[in-house]
Amino acid sequence: MVGYPNGMKKKTEKAAAHNASRRGMSLEEDLNIANLHYFNTDKAVIYKKPTPVQIVHVDYPSRNKAKITEAYFRNPSTTDYNGIYKGSYIDFEAKEIRNKTLFPLSLIHKHQLNHLFKVEQQGAISFVIIRFSSYNETYLIFTRDLINHLENKDIKSLTLKWIKDRGYLCEYQYHIPCDYLKIVEQERLRRLKQHE
Amino acid sequence: MVGYPNGMKKKTEKAAAHNASRRGMSLEEDLNIANLHYFNTDKAVIYKKPTPVQIVHVDYPSRNKAKITEAYFRNPSTTDYNGIYKGSYIDFEAKEIRNKTLFPLSLIHKHQLNHLFKVEQQGAISFVIIRFSSYNETYLIFTRDLINHLENKDIKSLTLKWIKDRGYLCEYQYHIPCDYLKIVEQERLRRLKQHE
Repeated sequence: MVGYPNGMKKKTEKAAAHNASRRGMSLEEDLNIANLHYFNTDKAVIYKKPTPVQIVHVDYPSRNKAKITEAYFRNPSTTDYNGIYKGSYIDFEAKEIRNKTLFPLSLIHKHQLNHLFKVEQQGAISFVIIRFSSYNETYLIFTRDLINHLENKDIKSLTLKWIKDRGYLCEYQYHIPCDYLKIVEQERLRRLKQHE
Repeated sequence: MVGYPNGMKKKTEKAAAHNASRRGMSLEEDLNIANLHYFNTDKAVIYKKPTPVQIVHVDYPSRNKAKITEAYFRNPSTTDYNGIYKGSYIDFEAKEIRNKTLFPLSLIHKHQLNHLFKVEQQGAISFVIIRFSSYNETYLIFTRDLINHLENKDIKSLTLKWIKDRGYLCEYQYHIPCDYLKIVEQERLRRLKQHE
């Protein structure tokens, strides 16, 4: 597993390592375990997309696997995770930070936010998952709440207070270290009711 | 754009170049143009996933972008394309071949077929797009037809006859060189009727 450039991944690993109780598990690892569990139990099919890489040079040594010898990380044009749950299209971005009071919106690329808005328009259940690694607390924030909050305002960061207020705390369970699907199910039922 | 190893991409390019009328456009390029058009006209949000790459070594030259110096192509665990259209989760794999009579099923990885079956279970509209580059004909085959066809049978290839019979021909239009969403819309309406 290799993350994006600028040492982001390294920071994540360090932060996770700080938290002894979670034995160095990063949010990405937790989500991978959760998604695998959802997949194996036929609950949902949700994957992390591969890291986007621009490949410049490939060697083809005879009888051996093709070897990429020059490539660069690209900015992702979409979010990291998507898939399907009970017929609903699911789409989200996940971020882990060490900051104790703020989530800087600069951590989410503009076209990623735009992507979330676009899929929301098409009827997706979309959201952002933010982990404050200092507290080991993970929150799910639905895109619609984010849209309402950011609309016509020059907001650079989400405060922890706002996140606690509008977000949903993701429960930790042994097989599902970040059980976000439980929160998604509530949203799905809420929308079904709205359509009745 | 770089494809999977074993020179598959090279073949694709050669095959497409054969077809003078289409000025060397590959199926992947056509689908990218179609998806961009769907995105810009707010019809659908469908993306090709990045090529999965296992990164082994990254150099961090000071003040420069991180440079990947050793990496290998990985087998994809999911399909190449997914997204959302009018609330429906869309998922498909696309393949271009030069063979004039057969589509060898070995071109689709077993876990990709398994993925298509899994998302279909969750209510996705999922399919395979196959282009016969010799004829420049592109067909969409729904996963459910594929499931019925393959069930309990030892089938190694799809014949062109079967594909013509059960598949849907994708129309070529200037802005949408492979207009598969038109066929998806028919399927969406058919499913809505079924639920009435």
